[in-house]
Amino acid sequence: MNFCSDNATGASPQVLEALVRANGGYAMPYGADPLTLGIEDRIRDLFETDAAIYLVATGTAANALSLASMTQPWGAVFCHPKSHIEVDECGAPEFFTGGAKLIHLDDVDGKVTTQGLKDAERHIHDISVHQVQPSAISLTQATEAGTVYSLDELQQITGFAHEYGLTVHMDGARFSNALVRLGCSPAEATWKSGVDIMSFGGSKNGCMAAEAVIIFNDCLAKGFEYRRKRAGHLFSKMRFISAQFDAYLQDEHWLGNARHANAMAQQLTDGLRTIAGATFQTPVEANELFVELPEKVIRGLFADGFQFYRWDNPEHGRIIRLVTAFNTNPDHVAAFVESAKHYAG
Amino acid sequence: MNFCSDNATGASPQVLEALVRANGGYAMPYGADPLTLGIEDRIRDLFETDAAIYLVATGTAANALSLASMTQPWGAVFCHPKSHIEVDECGAPEFFTGGAKLIHLDDVDGKVTTQGLKDAERHIHDISVHQVQPSAISLTQATEAGTVYSLDELQQITGFAHEYGLTVHMDGARFSNALVRLGCSPAEATWKSGVDIMSFGGSKNGCMAAEAVIIFNDCLAKGFEYRRKRAGHLFSKMRFISAQFDAYLQDEHWLGNARHANAMAQQLTDGLRTIAGATFQTPVEANELFVELPEKVIRGLFADGFQFYRWDNPEHGRIIRLVTAFNTNPDHVAAFVESAKHYAG
Amino acid sequence: MNFCSDNATGASPQVLEALVRANGGYAMPYGADPLTLGIEDRIRDLFETDAAIYLVATGTAANALSLASMTQPWGAVFCHPKSHIEVDECGAPEFFTGGAKLIHLDDVDGKVTTQGLKDAERHIHDISVHQVQPSAISLTQATEAGTVYSLDELQQITGFAHEYGLTVHMDGARFSNALVRLGCSPAEATWKSGVDIMSFGGSKNGCMAAEAVIIFNDCLAKGFEYRRKRAGHLFSKMRFISAQFDAYLQDEHWLGNARHANAMAQQLTDGLRTIAGATFQTPVEANELFVELPEKVIRGLFADGFQFYRWDNPEHGRIIRLVTAFNTNPDHVAAFVESAKHYAG
Amino acid sequence: MNFCSDNATGASPQVLEALVRANGGYAMPYGADPLTLGIEDRIRDLFETDAAIYLVATGTAANALSLASMTQPWGAVFCHPKSHIEVDECGAPEFFTGGAKLIHLDDVDGKVTTQGLKDAERHIHDISVHQVQPSAISLTQATEAGTVYSLDELQQITGFAHEYGLTVHMDGARFSNALVRLGCSPAEATWKSGVDIMSFGGSKNGCMAAEAVIIFNDCLAKGFEYRRKRAGHLFSKMRFISAQFDAYLQDEHWLGNARHANAMAQQLTDGLRTIAGATFQTPVEANELFVELPEKVIRGLFADGFQFYRWDNPEHGRIIRLVTAFNTNPDHVAAFVESAKHYAG
Repeated sequence: MNFCSDNATGASPQVLEALVRANGGYAMPYGADPLTLGIEDRIRDLFETDAAIYLVATGTAANALSLASMTQPWGAVFCHPKSHIEVDECGAPEFFTGGAKLIHLDDVDGKVTTQGLKDAERHIHDISVHQVQPSAISLTQATEAGTVYSLDELQQITGFAHEYGLTVHMDGARFSNALVRLGCSPAEATWKSGVDIMSFGGSKNGCMAAEAVIIFNDCLAKGFEYRRKRAGHLFSKMRFISAQFDAYLQDEHWLGNARHANAMAQQLTDGLRTIAGATFQTPVEANELFVELPEKVIRGLFADGFQFYRWDNPEHGRIIRLVTAFNTNPDHVAAFVESAKHYAG
Repeated sequence: MNFCSDNATGASPQVLEALVRANGGYAMPYGADPLTLGIEDRIRDLFETDAAIYLVATGTAANALSLASMTQPWGAVFCHPKSHIEVDECGAPEFFTGGAKLIHLDDVDGKVTTQGLKDAERHIHDISVHQVQPSAISLTQATEAGTVYSLDELQQITGFAHEYGLTVHMDGARFSNALVRLGCSPAEATWKSGVDIMSFGGSKNGCMAAEAVIIFNDCLAKGFEYRRKRAGHLFSKMRFISAQFDAYLQDEHWLGNARHANAMAQQLTDGLRTIAGATFQTPVEANELFVELPEKVIRGLFADGFQFYRWDNPEHGRIIRLVTAFNTNPDHVAAFVESAKHYAG
Repeated sequence: MNFCSDNATGASPQVLEALVRANGGYAMPYGADPLTLGIEDRIRDLFETDAAIYLVATGTAANALSLASMTQPWGAVFCHPKSHIEVDECGAPEFFTGGAKLIHLDDVDGKVTTQGLKDAERHIHDISVHQVQPSAISLTQATEAGTVYSLDELQQITGFAHEYGLTVHMDGARFSNALVRLGCSPAEATWKSGVDIMSFGGSKNGCMAAEAVIIFNDCLAKGFEYRRKRAGHLFSKMRFISAQFDAYLQDEHWLGNARHANAMAQQLTDGLRTIAGATFQTPVEANELFVELPEKVIRGLFADGFQFYRWDNPEHGRIIRLVTAFNTNPDHVAAFVESAKHYAG
Repeated sequence: MNFCSDNATGASPQVLEALVRANGGYAMPYGADPLTLGIEDRIRDLFETDAAIYLVATGTAANALSLASMTQPWGAVFCHPKSHIEVDECGAPEFFTGGAKLIHLDDVDGKVTTQGLKDAERHIHDISVHQVQPSAISLTQATEAGTVYSLDELQQITGFAHEYGLTVHMDGARFSNALVRLGCSPAEATWKSGVDIMSFGGSKNGCMAAEAVIIFNDCLAKGFEYRRKRAGHLFSKMRFISAQFDAYLQDEHWLGNARHANAMAQQLTDGLRTIAGATFQTPVEANELFVELPEKVIRGLFADGFQFYRWDNPEHGRIIRLVTAFNTNPDHVAAFVESAKHYAG
């Protein structure tokens, strides 16, 4: 009964079966196989545009390679202070970009705000040769706080970015969860709303290790293949990455998985909301909850064998994070709520 | 009937089954799972030493991360001019090391020679603050020319290296094939012969995408985990890399695979040796052949549907490369030889 | 009548004369000349310690090379948000370190505060392999806000740093101005107070282009000479950098220069303090003033031909920065005050 | 009596006087001073083209910044194996480019040959995503072997380069010496012959520390100013670099200096040519000689107090390098020849 992270799950049966299927016979390496060529077309169809597609195996690779395509080494990327690229990638963006700088924008609920954009604007006005040159904005959708940018919010940010000559990266490690929430098309949620490049996540939502960089703005595609190769992220047996996406996109498997995860998060939310002292930190709009609970409840849940993280402080923080996934068992959710209620007394 | 490369194969059934087995239930991410912890111990046992073990998914990552641990950005790595790190990784060593330089040593049959070491020695004597500082030697075992360093040859090189304060990297993408040829223990073929760090390949010999960096010299382990993470090569669902190695090492699966590949290469060699005009470029000691054939034979083989590369020139070269693999079908080998003989007339 | 910056000045006559003196005859290049060897000893004597000394020509080079010696590419350097390394070097620290991250600490009056150290402490406690690893703290003395750390303040920070295994960099572009204020010995103001490495500035205080990196902590000296060479900062005719320092240190020229600059700043401060509406932003402890003035006064000063910057906003900010230098003319200061008083009416 | 290097000299009196002249009064920093703006125009006039001009203080900075503008990190620069960028800059090109690779071309007398171009062509034909992508050729004029490319030779190389989409860098540390030899205009020797960017040296020919990067091909200028700043090579008191160039270009001072140095080299050559056993390694076309002499002559010269380097081997090599400079004393040359003749017996 693990609510630690959506990467503590395995892969979905469909994804594993696709790996087995892909294993037959010889296939030319490094992406020259039919499965890889086919999946690129599939993603283009899905997003209704002629994007450049590059598959990689980790989200950090997808993000860092994307950012490296968006900024010179002397550039800057605006991001929110708790973004994955800023706090969870051990400096991968700096490594891949050759030393570009990440600059924090004010955020609320994990989202860049209007105030954040004003800060960025002032920053842009102040630069000269002595400062790094703002080049891009990176957003996370769904956010690290479990929220989802509306299309309006998204377009306000991308509009600002383009007005100032910045390009827009979307860290879509949980794009599926966001899309299910938004209820719009993949195109509407991305390039039609001004996104230039996206890390489209598979690993957290049923794949084993598969992410796609989707480059909507073809100016950013130049040299990507060399960056990927040079970073050790071009797989010789590429068909095994492609096979995962093949299953992932088949019959809306990805959306079904995300729908389930989001539903489980809502079920948890509904259950915990009734507990005295439970304080949700952010709206629950995808598959993550951040909720403050009484200490006795937290200890009780641990005692009952539930796994999750204290978020604000690993030892005695009272805000916990709960993450649901494509295969979260509804019975575990029910049991969690039951246990919480029990200890809340 | 594909003899292009050992990375045009899929994964072995045992490896795929291990992936399926590994898929059950939750597991803590980023290598904190039992399978990963276990495989590190397995590799240490196999090599009879307390090495640091880091799993990654591509050979380029393994090599480049290894080299980055061995040299400062202002350092130099001696290597043979056709090494994978020099010609097939799009500059990954330079990227990961922060700009270190690869310096060519004279080679014969894909091996660094005594003359090469003399060149290195002169290079070392000439340096001052104006030159990059020699830091390491990188060898490939089995070599890119399909040959295998004897332990004596290996020890001559590692002895030289250590005398001059250089550390030794072994690109062991085909270490299994070399070991089968040498008939010694993994320890004897590596650290007991002076190797400081090895990229231990799985992907070319039955795995899907799995390589282990084995750091025998613990001075080189410092910071490796951060380098790996920062390069996007720490997998969230690490168990799926570890599971491959689990199957790979089980019941000497890796050695059986390599033994088969080498035997198939010998069968090809024996068959082609009788053809008039066939000239082997290098001794066949592992799973690769480089052989010059009459043009009519090459065309005939292509006409019969065999796949392989002209090596010296992609359009009209007459030296071809043939690579066998863990799953090369003996009947395909026999058919290849038959066809060659037929066209040789 | 220029109060824009201490780098809008030329060099002192003594420094220029030293250049002329140094020009006679041949001298071995790249620092093997007697003048360079001598100046290194002079600096060691001055600081009463056996430090490693490396001369360069710009403050950005001195800072970035220093930081690169203090952190791995996956490391982090704590600094104050308006430090030169963060906002005025176009990402030089990131370039030279190979992509390390600068992390802001809370500051007041340009100084890192106790609260800042608490933030750093929490940061350090939270790290795992996913985060950049805190390696160093960088301080500016005198600060960018024209203030000076007391020895107590300095020692609190260096004590904290060493407790957590961080090393301490001092950006001493205006170290001379700080030292004159502190009234202690160079040793007391640096290594005796826990500083590990300092960029010791000459260019802002009478030199043409000369800075010395002084490495008190010899662990940090390893490889510095290669970094400097590789960055193009080892001068062939090094004697011309050394000659500047030779004059700079002769007969306490550097201290005399700084004493004059600080005195001029005090004279300005005393004069402006009486103006209605003048609000000093920070204590004036070195050679910079940050003062809010009525708009009519600012316009009047510009109209009278004084040069200086509006600091908070280049177009209509009312906080201005005034910088005095080794050769600031007391009559210009008097005229400035007179003019300000006139327009304050 | 020093023939070690043209960087063992000081600066010319004219250059020093210009520094003194430049010292008066305030000047806006970082190149916004009138002297800098003027010198940029002067260089454009001299080269009869609207080039972008960036001044720096060292040749390594000029070269490495130039190369960084010409290649992506995954690119390659063809060069001759003994070029300064390859062997004397401690990896600066790799540092500044973010890890691009230098690839050796066959050379004779320090010049890239027709065979070298054929090698480059084959290299270009063989590349795929797995290899670094050839981006540029770098030439040295005058060469490290003391020879000078004719305009025909130069145009053959630049023609080849442009045919294959490569840009051409000229390391012109001794461009003055080459130009005097060629007897053509600066424009003819550079952009009219296909050079895209040049490091135009001052330091070896009378300046103290001054080099100009001249970008003829404006596609290469993008971002240069940020690269320079970020590398610590934008000087605050830039007027002192510009002043050197001001004097250097005044009244053909640079050409006069080079003419003298070349003449002194010819005088040495003429004198040594008569010595039995003297074997010139390369034609003497600029200000460097490489000549094999009998051991007794070499020892005798050292005994008489002449300073120079054994070139092929610092301890007992019999090929010596002699370098003349703008201020080489003809009497010293005569004395050198006399001494050599004496010991030659």
